[in-house]
Amino acid sequence: MKMIYILFVFALVSFTSHASVNDFCVADLKGPDSPSGYQCKPPNTVTVDDFVYTGFVAGNTTNTFNAALTSAFVTDFPGVNGLGVSAARLDIAKGGSIPMHTHPGATELLIMVEGQITAGFMTPTALYQKTLKPGDIMVFPQGQLHFQVNSGMGKATAFLAFSSANPGAQLLDLLLFGNSLPSELVAQTTFLDVPQVKKLKPRFGGRG
Amino acid sequence: MKMIYILFVFALVSFTSHASVNDFCVADLKGPDSPSGYQCKPPNTVTVDDFVYTGFVAGNTTNTFNAALTSAFVTDFPGVNGLGVSAARLDIAKGGSIPMHTHPGATELLIMVEGQITAGFMTPTALYQKTLKPGDIMVFPQGQLHFQVNSGMGKATAFLAFSSANPGAQLLDLLLFGNSLPSELVAQTTFLDVPQVKKLKPRFGGRG
Amino acid sequence: MKMIYILFVFALVSFTSHASVNDFCVADLKGPDSPSGYQCKPPNTVTVDDFVYTGFVAGNTTNTFNAALTSAFVTDFPGVNGLGVSAARLDIAKGGSIPMHTHPGATELLIMVEGQITAGFMTPTALYQKTLKPGDIMVFPQGQLHFQVNSGMGKATAFLAFSSANPGAQLLDLLLFGNSLPSELVAQTTFLDVPQVKKLKPRFGGRG
Amino acid sequence: MKMIYILFVFALVSFTSHASVNDFCVADLKGPDSPSGYQCKPPNTVTVDDFVYTGFVAGNTTNTFNAALTSAFVTDFPGVNGLGVSAARLDIAKGGSIPMHTHPGATELLIMVEGQITAGFMTPTALYQKTLKPGDIMVFPQGQLHFQVNSGMGKATAFLAFSSANPGAQLLDLLLFGNSLPSELVAQTTFLDVPQVKKLKPRFGGRG
Amino acid sequence: MKMIYILFVFALVSFTSHASVNDFCVADLKGPDSPSGYQCKPPNTVTVDDFVYTGFVAGNTTNTFNAALTSAFVTDFPGVNGLGVSAARLDIAKGGSIPMHTHPGATELLIMVEGQITAGFMTPTALYQKTLKPGDIMVFPQGQLHFQVNSGMGKATAFLAFSSANPGAQLLDLLLFGNSLPSELVAQTTFLDVPQVKKLKPRFGGRG
Amino acid sequence: MKMIYILFVFALVSFTSHASVNDFCVADLKGPDSPSGYQCKPPNTVTVDDFVYTGFVAGNTTNTFNAALTSAFVTDFPGVNGLGVSAARLDIAKGGSIPMHTHPGATELLIMVEGQITAGFMTPTALYQKTLKPGDIMVFPQGQLHFQVNSGMGKATAFLAFSSANPGAQLLDLLLFGNSLPSELVAQTTFLDVPQVKKLKPRFGGRG
Repeated sequence: MKMIYILFVFALVSFTSHASVNDFCVADLKGPDSPSGYQCKPPNTVTVDDFVYTGFVAGNTTNTFNAALTSAFVTDFPGVNGLGVSAARLDIAKGGSIPMHTHPGATELLIMVEGQITAGFMTPTALYQKTLKPGDIMVFPQGQLHFQVNSGMGKATAFLAFSSANPGAQLLDLLLFGNSLPSELVAQTTFLDVPQVKKLKPRFGGRG
Repeated sequence: MKMIYILFVFALVSFTSHASVNDFCVADLKGPDSPSGYQCKPPNTVTVDDFVYTGFVAGNTTNTFNAALTSAFVTDFPGVNGLGVSAARLDIAKGGSIPMHTHPGATELLIMVEGQITAGFMTPTALYQKTLKPGDIMVFPQGQLHFQVNSGMGKATAFLAFSSANPGAQLLDLLLFGNSLPSELVAQTTFLDVPQVKKLKPRFGGRG
Repeated sequence: MKMIYILFVFALVSFTSHASVNDFCVADLKGPDSPSGYQCKPPNTVTVDDFVYTGFVAGNTTNTFNAALTSAFVTDFPGVNGLGVSAARLDIAKGGSIPMHTHPGATELLIMVEGQITAGFMTPTALYQKTLKPGDIMVFPQGQLHFQVNSGMGKATAFLAFSSANPGAQLLDLLLFGNSLPSELVAQTTFLDVPQVKKLKPRFGGRG
Repeated sequence: MKMIYILFVFALVSFTSHASVNDFCVADLKGPDSPSGYQCKPPNTVTVDDFVYTGFVAGNTTNTFNAALTSAFVTDFPGVNGLGVSAARLDIAKGGSIPMHTHPGATELLIMVEGQITAGFMTPTALYQKTLKPGDIMVFPQGQLHFQVNSGMGKATAFLAFSSANPGAQLLDLLLFGNSLPSELVAQTTFLDVPQVKKLKPRFGGRG
Repeated sequence: MKMIYILFVFALVSFTSHASVNDFCVADLKGPDSPSGYQCKPPNTVTVDDFVYTGFVAGNTTNTFNAALTSAFVTDFPGVNGLGVSAARLDIAKGGSIPMHTHPGATELLIMVEGQITAGFMTPTALYQKTLKPGDIMVFPQGQLHFQVNSGMGKATAFLAFSSANPGAQLLDLLLFGNSLPSELVAQTTFLDVPQVKKLKPRFGGRG
Repeated sequence: MKMIYILFVFALVSFTSHASVNDFCVADLKGPDSPSGYQCKPPNTVTVDDFVYTGFVAGNTTNTFNAALTSAFVTDFPGVNGLGVSAARLDIAKGGSIPMHTHPGATELLIMVEGQITAGFMTPTALYQKTLKPGDIMVFPQGQLHFQVNSGMGKATAFLAFSSANPGAQLLDLLLFGNSLPSELVAQTTFLDVPQVKKLKPRFGGRG
């Protein structure tokens, strides 16, 4: 008995007292964010459910894109805070697509689960495009403009992993047509025709 | 025509000449590794196949563990070099498990695909364990000892994402019993009984 | 004399022998790149000219954009290798603009020097736009789509600083219209009309 | 109409809800600092003015150094928080100089705007010094002791960029002579003569 | 007098006002932790005692391990917050040892002070083991399982340095036997015999 | 036998093949350096001696400073490459000192071993100075100018740990007086008197 008692004194004092502080940092989503992520919840309030995300299931694809993206980012899944990784699920109905978009500051890994997706990213000098089936993974390096199109005969599903707990996702159409940027300025800075811009603005909620 | 010509002079000189250098760094696996990853292949030799991994399929689970891990790390998948993310596929037959292991320097995200897995990780003061089904994700923070057991009635499959292009994987039994560490020293530094150590050494290829 | 001799023995052996190795890492541009930058030139071959870039002057703005970007990135300026900073000079003739573009993985700081520029970046939910004059600085956070338009009555000049030695620069039009991506696929993933895409493809050198 | 409605549901739920959280982190300067920077202001309170710094104009050079440094660091310019870059403006009257100083933890890029500056940095084994004119850029690697002297016939102006949002600036004279370090200790640890130290202490506000 | 006055106006406004903010970030241990460390104490409340740790002396080795570890981590020593380094002192009585353990996310440097220690770490394919005496240093790379045994005739002392302000320390026995993980599950995931597990559980405080 | 055979197939293919690549990166000191450190030696040529530094003993203090610094940096100790930590030993004879110096880009931790040292660092607004005895540790944050003086009655010894594998060490006197910087320029940029500069130049090997 004495040995055990001494062991615990030793173990608690020397090894374990601070260990939980640094081993993880579950996000306190009610507190402020910072450049390195959210503040940590007090370790003694952390439970296994902070490390488990449930509901990684198909989203509703009845929309303009015939597609849905279900995110497991830090704001949905506080256990990934500060750990440099997160996930999302992509479901694309037949004929649908995830249009051109970027993740500023995160690389995306796309793991095919079902169906067939044609995906690609572009640099100023090259197009990297491939038709993917289950058993394939494709990587979209950080910040690159990329797209995913269901090129198969049925629905398609993929799991995405990101190199950031909070990768963001910026749909090109929302950036160009979803805000108050005047149509003429959009046209000038994209070389699109003004009528094309004016046609798309209302579809993406833009004003002016 | 002239406008296009001038455009290209401008575009090539000003915007595109160096862009491909920095947008990605596909590993030249024949060259040396460095603390930040492998050297980059010359950008003009890169093709889309560097960014696509094929063969992310079930491994052979006919082994001691009744389990298989198929890795898509940088050494298998040069496109992820320097991008801070990689993947693996886990297949566990009924009754099988991935025994206690760590990934030094990488967080693991486990996305359930099929079946049922009971997984967990331990800190010196707590156990974080959960039984997972499709639709669940669990995160194992960097460097933590963790395990995955097929607790269902059939086979189980999960996709893993890591916060490093080269996460490593260290099976505890191989560390303790798979090398030339004398049995007495293993016993002294683990509090296991010497006969227990001597029994496991041959199973994991250890000597001495 | 003896004191000096001993001093040098001490100083060379203890303090100075390795100092130059780590104080900087001038790029050996003939060697391979890596995720952390180029290999270092041998320190004894480094001269002050490695740390000085000359020719940071106005580029030729007689082109489609009426604009020129003169870059001082690591490929032009080997002294910045590994140091997380680089520069560029922006000259925009009256009526010209730098169209929509991103720097994957680098923040841009724009310091106005002469004239007037209207600049902005967009997130999916907001537009951040301002008309800038000498004495103003604007920051474009990492990976954001942004633009700069000469909104003044004469030429405009700005100096740019980046949070990376090799920020890259991706002009949206070149990504969408400058490669072999089929017009129908561009249209599907941007919601642009096919004729609009077909009109712009030849202007930016696209095929197919 | 319905399509637009559905689009917005999709867009808001899937793509845009968290995007602004991670795309930038404007400093809340009233809150505490952390090793990665200040806490983020709530994204919905951010305006374009957080990303624009005004007043990047010549400081008053009527002082001991005949020089002025106007800083646009995170404490002046909250939009650069967490983005790894900031700026300053240097004005040196004829005959003036910015004496020996360091920026602990930031590289400095000096872009010449007007006049002539002789600048340099030293390692234990080398001096890297150059006389700079408009069109020149010089880089001072992280943590190196460096100086800038107006070596021309009129005033000189340069713009500085730093590889940190908060580079600090430590003037050697203030470190050695501006505090309560006893003159004898300064002399012992610099090999300066005690009278020299005692002469400079009052000029830089030192005591003791 | 006037020169000094002007100097101070210049120095305070231009150089010194923000310098202390960034030069260090002493932990406010009463505030929350974050992925990059604790919030900073207000610089004007920092004293030299924040940068000095006292009590780096031999711990009590009268315990199961005949060993003691005295830590100078950020939670003991707020001055190291955000600086990527910390220390500990290891005292091992004759016959004692520090059993198998890991520091998730920190490399350990062991500097021998007194006596003799046999130390080692294992990868899946190799054992790196050495007997160390004063004058020797051994490095245990990040996240590797390692041990230290007093192999001499008297007590042994070593100083440890870590590449993190908060390295954590996870004793393998506490992870395996110190919590509520069922013995059968431990056995399944370690290949240990159930009686062995049941024998060790009470020694390390485990339940179930 | 078959079980073991299968185990090895599994283990080698799935877990161990790449593990050694990423677990450490011992410096190949004959190859080039890079911003992240040296290239890795092939893992199969690594031995335990790469991870052990011998000769961490008192240096010769018969010199100008009555002090010696014995370094265990990456160039002396290839096992620390890429691991963000290194060490040095400081021996100061009675009356000696380590004069003002900086480590650009590394924090220093000083662990007292024997004797008494008065050490300190300065920011533009404060002096942080303390007299240290065995049992004390002091931290000198990254890039700060600092000094160590033997203030005791006998010799003093301290062990230093750094937050970088290659911290560098820049002695202020060598920077100011050890090179070809003209005395007048030193005087102008330090406010030292020219005769003082001319007196110190020859002591530190300076020319001109």
